[in-house]
Amino acid sequence: MSEAHEPRRTWALLLEYDGTGISGWQRQSTPERPGPVSFQALLEAAAAHLARGAHVPVTAAGRTDAGVHAAGQVAMLTLPDRYRADQLREALNFHLRPYPFVVLHAAPAPTGWNPRFSARARAYEYRILNRRPRPAMERRVWHVERKLDLDAMREGASHLLGHHDFTSFRAASCQAKSPVRTLDRLEVSREGELVVLRVEARSFLHHQVRNMAGTLVLVGEGKWRPAQVARALEARTRAAAGPTAPPDGLTLIRVEYDPDPFTPIPAPTVAG
Amino acid sequence: MSEAHEPRRTWALLLEYDGTGISGWQRQSTPERPGPVSFQALLEAAAAHLARGAHVPVTAAGRTDAGVHAAGQVAMLTLPDRYRADQLREALNFHLRPYPFVVLHAAPAPTGWNPRFSARARAYEYRILNRRPRPAMERRVWHVERKLDLDAMREGASHLLGHHDFTSFRAASCQAKSPVRTLDRLEVSREGELVVLRVEARSFLHHQVRNMAGTLVLVGEGKWRPAQVARALEARTRAAAGPTAPPDGLTLIRVEYDPDPFTPIPAPTVAG
Repeated sequence: MSEAHEPRRTWALLLEYDGTGISGWQRQSTPERPGPVSFQALLEAAAAHLARGAHVPVTAAGRTDAGVHAAGQVAMLTLPDRYRADQLREALNFHLRPYPFVVLHAAPAPTGWNPRFSARARAYEYRILNRRPRPAMERRVWHVERKLDLDAMREGASHLLGHHDFTSFRAASCQAKSPVRTLDRLEVSREGELVVLRVEARSFLHHQVRNMAGTLVLVGEGKWRPAQVARALEARTRAAAGPTAPPDGLTLIRVEYDPDPFTPIPAPTVAG
Repeated sequence: MSEAHEPRRTWALLLEYDGTGISGWQRQSTPERPGPVSFQALLEAAAAHLARGAHVPVTAAGRTDAGVHAAGQVAMLTLPDRYRADQLREALNFHLRPYPFVVLHAAPAPTGWNPRFSARARAYEYRILNRRPRPAMERRVWHVERKLDLDAMREGASHLLGHHDFTSFRAASCQAKSPVRTLDRLEVSREGELVVLRVEARSFLHHQVRNMAGTLVLVGEGKWRPAQVARALEARTRAAAGPTAPPDGLTLIRVEYDPDPFTPIPAPTVAG
């Protein structure tokens, strides 16, 4: 049987990575023009080892920026149908060494499924180390020295919840057609010396979480009153909102699908 | 006033460090014979900047091994009495850059206080990443692939609690006069993909926590029955217990004192 007719299989992959020092998800290199290390390029290079060196394109739920981490990024690729799910995970992880990047789970992709367009919700965490000394143990944080007022941050956050035009919180580089998004969750909690923002939406604009974090920190530091967040949102111009928080504190926690490719379909129960 | 007569002050320091790639607490170098980087040498070098270049000896609650971390190591040093507590912390932290090592708190040492001999209790955490894929986000873990049986580990741990001769769990290099220690706490819990051991005692033998962790993992993997932990303890020989767990998973969490140098003495209340 020629390679062209070899059966192929499309896989959903659950991925974990530490973005420190990596240029982000998206490949910026080509065979002709090598670029900085990206998770997409690393995974495509690992997959090529399983496809007799052929290029294997990989798509993901979201293109995380340089320095951003993932505990549950989701990607898709198609390979010759020669592997069981656990063999595929192990083989990819073998080739991803020694990068801080692993496949947590591999499962056959449902028919018609796409990691980006089938996503029903995305959950991010933004972690702030809120103390005077710089971090020695934690890398995946934004270090903010001034003691944050969480009540004020929560009041500011309440203005962002729901269905809004988020133009003020959108990067100039954002390619989305519409600036309108529905923010389903934006919680602020203190966990020891950390202040953690937990956000959820079906999808986000480029830099939206980091721009919301940078703005809420202005409120927490007392430089902005909480009501200014509402005014920034209404202004519909990037200049009206606060600065973009650094990528270090941001982690893509979870992408939700229905059905979830990583949840095995339960065997049918026999009516008793 | 000559330098010899300058008033001096002894400080208690609360320290945080990530031990990855560092040779441990204890200085192994001298001006004549440079050695690997240790936290003691880094802190002494930082302190020398505040003492006109004079050598400032530093002692600590415990000499953590190479690769072991601390969220609450405690140390003592004496300097010319020219600094307020917050100035001292900031100045030391300035000189500790860029190492993963910071002073969290500086406070005047109580009279007669010693970080090692005044300690009433020490608390350690040993963290295990219990899953098949290697860690990508967590560095401060021991990676154990086989699913651990926590009930069995807890049963094994119960044999170690209390007052025992811990010779079987003591490094050959241990310099303590007596192998008898009282283990006040040894709890095993699952937190997501992590299995965390929390241990407390007034003091520990060299490698005691890592040797207990290595032994309990044998139990959790089903290679040992829980009762074998009791037999290993009774044997009073290092060869009877399990292997030494790697340093990566171990963190010195807290050292307890009474009075605690880092807790300000409350102002006397006026009887009403």
